[in-house]
Amino acid sequence: MEKVKIGVFKCGNIGTAPILELLLDELADRKDITVRTVTTGSKMDVEAIEDAIEKIFEFSPGIVLFVSPNTSAPGPAKAREILSKKKVPAVVFTDGPGKRVKTEMEEQGLGYAIIMGDPLIGARKEFLDPIEMAIFNSNVIKVLASTGVFRLAFQEIDKLISALKTKSTLSMPKLIIDTDSIRDASNFRNPYAKAKAMAAYEMLKKVAEINVKACFIEKEKEKYIPLVACAHEIVQASANLAEEAREMEKYTDTLLRTPHAKDGRLKIKDKLMLPPAVKKEDYKKMD
Amino acid sequence: MEKVKIGVFKCGNIGTAPILELLLDELADRKDITVRTVTTGSKMDVEAIEDAIEKIFEFSPGIVLFVSPNTSAPGPAKAREILSKKKVPAVVFTDGPGKRVKTEMEEQGLGYAIIMGDPLIGARKEFLDPIEMAIFNSNVIKVLASTGVFRLAFQEIDKLISALKTKSTLSMPKLIIDTDSIRDASNFRNPYAKAKAMAAYEMLKKVAEINVKACFIEKEKEKYIPLVACAHEIVQASANLAEEAREMEKYTDTLLRTPHAKDGRLKIKDKLMLPPAVKKEDYKKMD
Amino acid sequence: MEKVKIGVFKCGNIGTAPILELLLDELADRKDITVRTVTTGSKMDVEAIEDAIEKIFEFSPGIVLFVSPNTSAPGPAKAREILSKKKVPAVVFTDGPGKRVKTEMEEQGLGYAIIMGDPLIGARKEFLDPIEMAIFNSNVIKVLASTGVFRLAFQEIDKLISALKTKSTLSMPKLIIDTDSIRDASNFRNPYAKAKAMAAYEMLKKVAEINVKACFIEKEKEKYIPLVACAHEIVQASANLAEEAREMEKYTDTLLRTPHAKDGRLKIKDKLMLPPAVKKEDYKKMD
Amino acid sequence: MEKVKIGVFKCGNIGTAPILELLLDELADRKDITVRTVTTGSKMDVEAIEDAIEKIFEFSPGIVLFVSPNTSAPGPAKAREILSKKKVPAVVFTDGPGKRVKTEMEEQGLGYAIIMGDPLIGARKEFLDPIEMAIFNSNVIKVLASTGVFRLAFQEIDKLISALKTKSTLSMPKLIIDTDSIRDASNFRNPYAKAKAMAAYEMLKKVAEINVKACFIEKEKEKYIPLVACAHEIVQASANLAEEAREMEKYTDTLLRTPHAKDGRLKIKDKLMLPPAVKKEDYKKMD
Amino acid sequence: MEKVKIGVFKCGNIGTAPILELLLDELADRKDITVRTVTTGSKMDVEAIEDAIEKIFEFSPGIVLFVSPNTSAPGPAKAREILSKKKVPAVVFTDGPGKRVKTEMEEQGLGYAIIMGDPLIGARKEFLDPIEMAIFNSNVIKVLASTGVFRLAFQEIDKLISALKTKSTLSMPKLIIDTDSIRDASNFRNPYAKAKAMAAYEMLKKVAEINVKACFIEKEKEKYIPLVACAHEIVQASANLAEEAREMEKYTDTLLRTPHAKDGRLKIKDKLMLPPAVKKEDYKKMD
Amino acid sequence: MEKVKIGVFKCGNIGTAPILELLLDELADRKDITVRTVTTGSKMDVEAIEDAIEKIFEFSPGIVLFVSPNTSAPGPAKAREILSKKKVPAVVFTDGPGKRVKTEMEEQGLGYAIIMGDPLIGARKEFLDPIEMAIFNSNVIKVLASTGVFRLAFQEIDKLISALKTKSTLSMPKLIIDTDSIRDASNFRNPYAKAKAMAAYEMLKKVAEINVKACFIEKEKEKYIPLVACAHEIVQASANLAEEAREMEKYTDTLLRTPHAKDGRLKIKDKLMLPPAVKKEDYKKMD
Repeated sequence: MEKVKIGVFKCGNIGTAPILELLLDELADRKDITVRTVTTGSKMDVEAIEDAIEKIFEFSPGIVLFVSPNTSAPGPAKAREILSKKKVPAVVFTDGPGKRVKTEMEEQGLGYAIIMGDPLIGARKEFLDPIEMAIFNSNVIKVLASTGVFRLAFQEIDKLISALKTKSTLSMPKLIIDTDSIRDASNFRNPYAKAKAMAAYEMLKKVAEINVKACFIEKEKEKYIPLVACAHEIVQASANLAEEAREMEKYTDTLLRTPHAKDGRLKIKDKLMLPPAVKKEDYKKMD
Repeated sequence: MEKVKIGVFKCGNIGTAPILELLLDELADRKDITVRTVTTGSKMDVEAIEDAIEKIFEFSPGIVLFVSPNTSAPGPAKAREILSKKKVPAVVFTDGPGKRVKTEMEEQGLGYAIIMGDPLIGARKEFLDPIEMAIFNSNVIKVLASTGVFRLAFQEIDKLISALKTKSTLSMPKLIIDTDSIRDASNFRNPYAKAKAMAAYEMLKKVAEINVKACFIEKEKEKYIPLVACAHEIVQASANLAEEAREMEKYTDTLLRTPHAKDGRLKIKDKLMLPPAVKKEDYKKMD
Repeated sequence: MEKVKIGVFKCGNIGTAPILELLLDELADRKDITVRTVTTGSKMDVEAIEDAIEKIFEFSPGIVLFVSPNTSAPGPAKAREILSKKKVPAVVFTDGPGKRVKTEMEEQGLGYAIIMGDPLIGARKEFLDPIEMAIFNSNVIKVLASTGVFRLAFQEIDKLISALKTKSTLSMPKLIIDTDSIRDASNFRNPYAKAKAMAAYEMLKKVAEINVKACFIEKEKEKYIPLVACAHEIVQASANLAEEAREMEKYTDTLLRTPHAKDGRLKIKDKLMLPPAVKKEDYKKMD
Repeated sequence: MEKVKIGVFKCGNIGTAPILELLLDELADRKDITVRTVTTGSKMDVEAIEDAIEKIFEFSPGIVLFVSPNTSAPGPAKAREILSKKKVPAVVFTDGPGKRVKTEMEEQGLGYAIIMGDPLIGARKEFLDPIEMAIFNSNVIKVLASTGVFRLAFQEIDKLISALKTKSTLSMPKLIIDTDSIRDASNFRNPYAKAKAMAAYEMLKKVAEINVKACFIEKEKEKYIPLVACAHEIVQASANLAEEAREMEKYTDTLLRTPHAKDGRLKIKDKLMLPPAVKKEDYKKMD
Repeated sequence: MEKVKIGVFKCGNIGTAPILELLLDELADRKDITVRTVTTGSKMDVEAIEDAIEKIFEFSPGIVLFVSPNTSAPGPAKAREILSKKKVPAVVFTDGPGKRVKTEMEEQGLGYAIIMGDPLIGARKEFLDPIEMAIFNSNVIKVLASTGVFRLAFQEIDKLISALKTKSTLSMPKLIIDTDSIRDASNFRNPYAKAKAMAAYEMLKKVAEINVKACFIEKEKEKYIPLVACAHEIVQASANLAEEAREMEKYTDTLLRTPHAKDGRLKIKDKLMLPPAVKKEDYKKMD
Repeated sequence: MEKVKIGVFKCGNIGTAPILELLLDELADRKDITVRTVTTGSKMDVEAIEDAIEKIFEFSPGIVLFVSPNTSAPGPAKAREILSKKKVPAVVFTDGPGKRVKTEMEEQGLGYAIIMGDPLIGARKEFLDPIEMAIFNSNVIKVLASTGVFRLAFQEIDKLISALKTKSTLSMPKLIIDTDSIRDASNFRNPYAKAKAMAAYEMLKKVAEINVKACFIEKEKEKYIPLVACAHEIVQASANLAEEAREMEKYTDTLLRTPHAKDGRLKIKDKLMLPPAVKKEDYKKMD
């Protein structure tokens, strides 16, 4: 089997970024893909991006995933411009502000997954140190995972991989992952668990809103410090709620698990002690 | 100011991996460094590593950070062999099994930071799907951040950067981060908070122990499924305890924050509403 | 001492409504005021309001407090029209939509306190029964109390009472109670407690936003049921966070208490075992 | 359809008071009733009551609900005396001390619902300020709602309304709502949820007991302050337990909901995503 | 140094029983005492007691501690009768019903410590199995320990030991440990922690009340099962609250610790990292 | 029916000790056994043991249960030596270090139940006072009970009692209760509850490991105080997790209860409101 080569390019950071490619191969035993990632760390200036992005193409990827905050900022915009010119199909993973350049991305021939609940961090020097940053990301990752948002994201990539393997026509994802996505596609068995997951996600959207105000609008530290601190408290409360949603499913032993088989197909199970099964139409029910 | 170029190479995943380089530049405004990361995703076979590691040198890094689980496995061992031959100073970040090749790494001229509490994941197909994997990492990140382990780690890199900037002799880190590191260097003001942080870390070490048994020793699924599930419950309890340790410091407004200044120096503060200050001897007290 | 007669008129319900007048005389021993309330229950149609509002004037109030949701709706608008024509000074207590008729209320000569975080309930018959309604109000009351919003509200009334007693000129309140009010006037001693309180309040504002969508925009029950359920989960999480903010102050025995003296003055204390003291300038520091 | 006019008269405050009439018309869309409430705020002296109670009769109510603490105190006793003389059927809602005048109320021709777990507040000036008072009520409301006590209360009123509409003979309620009422009529599906609800209610009764001691027996502040503080801690613990009881039912999607239809009938449902149904014998099973 | 021989006789079980003697010598290094315990297990019939109690005197104890539930029941009454006739000073540790024979015990020359908050267990066969019994005791032990009740108890014994060592006159304890004991002698630094401890203790007293009803009054299992289940839920909530009281003191590093020195004196400390100090007047402040 | 006489001898303390014999007769109504216990308090020196152990034989027990920490220490070893010489069958209940003398005990003809998760306490004078000791035991008891470990233990004794009653051959227990015992024999209905219980137990084993280091290896108080404090935090977290495991079973009303009938047979039930039933093969499924 020829492996699909997946190139991942990241600049800056959003909650979806740190482990996106790991979602594709959680057991590190998948035979149908190879992954290479190149990043510029937390920087997202044009210069850094131009310098780094070429490396990802040296790996001859069959598809490129591009992850960054605010995809309309100069650096990410430059990256999209570059990606758009290459022959390689590419998908943009980004946060809420990306919604504004949705049409532009479509014109560029890029797929996209805009995660509305992947919030801006409270980037104020009186507040944000490496530890606070790490904890914020930990909380966001927990929410995006527990609510099923990550599942929505990696399934899109799996579909592209599947199409590349079978040389079918690629249908580039045009995905805005908002609270209604959780409502419609999160696969919670308990409707209250779903409601809690939606609540957690809405809270992340609120965090984004507050941090934009705290980082870009308020100028006095007496005003912005309490705001970023308040936003990070909400993230933590959101993570607790998302965890609670997941725990609910454990209480009735109905927690959905969807591991990848070695051949890349998604397996499905929900009783802890039973083995996962491959479903012919993996993606149907989940769409 | 000439920037220090930091190359990061990762293969496979440990809790320290997803955001290690972000810890260096949490506000993305640091003027003294550039960062480039290359990874092979979750895979850590020799072939992937040989293919990918060269890219990191094409960025002409002044220093290379190499992050992987079990640094004595064939893939990571090969990476260390390659790193050892290059002229570029390199530091290995790895988990508990790395302790066994400590001497070897010293002979290879590599620095190292072995994080004893960065546990193996419960890698059994009946249990681990992408979501479970993400949540496990979220929990581990929270513990490593809240207990101060990440601070110990990034300070080592900061010291190297500082030495490279002043062209001083590099003192390669030889760090085994265990519970006594938290006891001696975590900077909790409240001794009970410190005890809770140590407890959280010890629990992660227990997780490592259980998952080794579940992944490599037990062969029947009736035996290993409950074990991996049990290990992941401990990670979650550990994350809660680590969060509680951090919350305790909030209750007396003594939570330590150490943001990076734009010039790379570490600032220090502990009253939320006050600004951070640069200390001449940043590293002294923290060592 | 001649007592100030306070008339309260309520139609419909917001979180501020059920106990507003009780905030003025929590120990039922205040000698300087009498209170009479008239309400139309949960209804707020024009007919009900016209029928009921006259009763409040039969008590010859020195001041009238008018509490309702959406003060621009026909019923409440009619009430304001009536209040505006009477000689009695009146203050409108209402929720977020009231902001739109701020100028109109000023032109009507009415004072107002618009509580931005007093959210619409999830009024869908598949979800809202009397019990769910009561619990929602319980949670909202807890947040508005614990965050100090209720203190901001009753202090405004106390100021008017004080002016009426001394026959000073009344300065009608023009108050929009938003998150910055908590930041600036909530009197938390611990800045993290304040951040948690602000977080709780922002979450209530998010609830308002979601319930407007669920009640007025979504038409299918598959869509609106999860939304109202999600909104009520956020209220509960908000109440927990608000409680946590208050608990923090207990941990250092700095919880502010401001009981009314029998003569109506506000006393202040923060050590549990010490008696409250009257401050000459009660309102100054708190404004 | 001629509407039943419901007059509500309140003096002083108990946990049942602030939202009693809202329980009858939680969606504000009921076509078969109108509600008018008159209160004297937190005061319950004879003078205030005589002044205010007449207003409620000016609304020509078909039935009067009278809510107050300690119905044997002079003010409420006067109110009952007045109510007893009017031709309008009336029901007294009151707290534990009401049990002592049960026979007297029967002789007065009054219905009654005595809520044994609606506790006296910790009315000591060193402790009780408006915020503490509001939080206490928030907690009591949560318990009375979550345990199903409020449902028992409003169903009694609904029965009277139903009888008035059909011009049937009124059967005045003689209800002492104690822990056995929760055991027998709370409709929890899970017996452990019921046990938790009963526990929460018993704790409220304990609060009543402690606050009586703290408010009327202990004379030194070193003695009564810790007592009232202790009582309010129990209320909070009780609210948490009541919430837990309710959450349990969510975990199996069996939470009972009983919304009012527009015509006043009680609907019943327990699966969140399913619509409520009218049952012919609404009250039978619930009695 | 001649050792004081302490004889402990237990029949049946209360929360104070399982570890009472361990409280005297928590580090097992005390040089001034020896302890021997004899028990009849959970039985407390006259026959068992007569058979077993003699053994304790064969150890020639300098003092005897007698622990049982309901000291007025036939078995324990017989034990007291026997103890009363011996020359050895004896102290009765028992639960609430003991209050009724207070005078009798004084006439018998017995000291006593009546722990009002040591509740009857929910002894109904449909509910109580060995596991439920163990958990109940675990919870009661936590409350009695965390609230400081155990400290009050063992200090009384320490005083007697001290008197026996110095051959001073013994002052037999006449102790009714009720909520006011916690208020006056629990040594919490934070008054809210004390209030929570008092609340936990009051909740245990409520448990006693409920279980008496459930075990001796209600005859139908539909009635008593929910009652015992409800009582045990309160014990659990009480344990949580007691733990919270203790945690509060950790947050400010003021948790009192009073270890026994090897010579039996009580040491005192409250900063975790500092050593304990012997105070001359150990008992003064604590009485 | 002739009663089986059970002699219990304890020296020192482990979590299993304080209530072991109570597990046999939780309702104190069992007709087939009598129990006598003799202990030396917290001491376990040879002298104390030799002095006290004879008393237990004066009760002519049909079987002796011997409970102590570290059964290979001189005192307990002496006790075993004595027990081995008597004609009475005896079972040793001890903690992890007992594993080392497993063969020795078999040679001595003693049965044994080695509870791997019954951890050493943090016996350092700066930390351990009577209250901390009691709370530690409370937590350990909760874990050993909730995880089902206590059930495994008492069932072994019940089997011996049963054999003695029927004069069958005694099969002396050779039990090492480790995490796999919980996995295989704990009777949780929910596999996640079982995983949480296993996690709680593994955490206790970790506590043992840390406390050995803190009590016997670290010599400086700056090192061992944080360690014992950390260990006790883990015990508390473990107790919470064990409680959560038990709560999970309540949520689906599947919590197993196994009360003793008066004739000593074990009854079984899992619906709270249903009566327990005797199963012929009590022990089969549970082994």
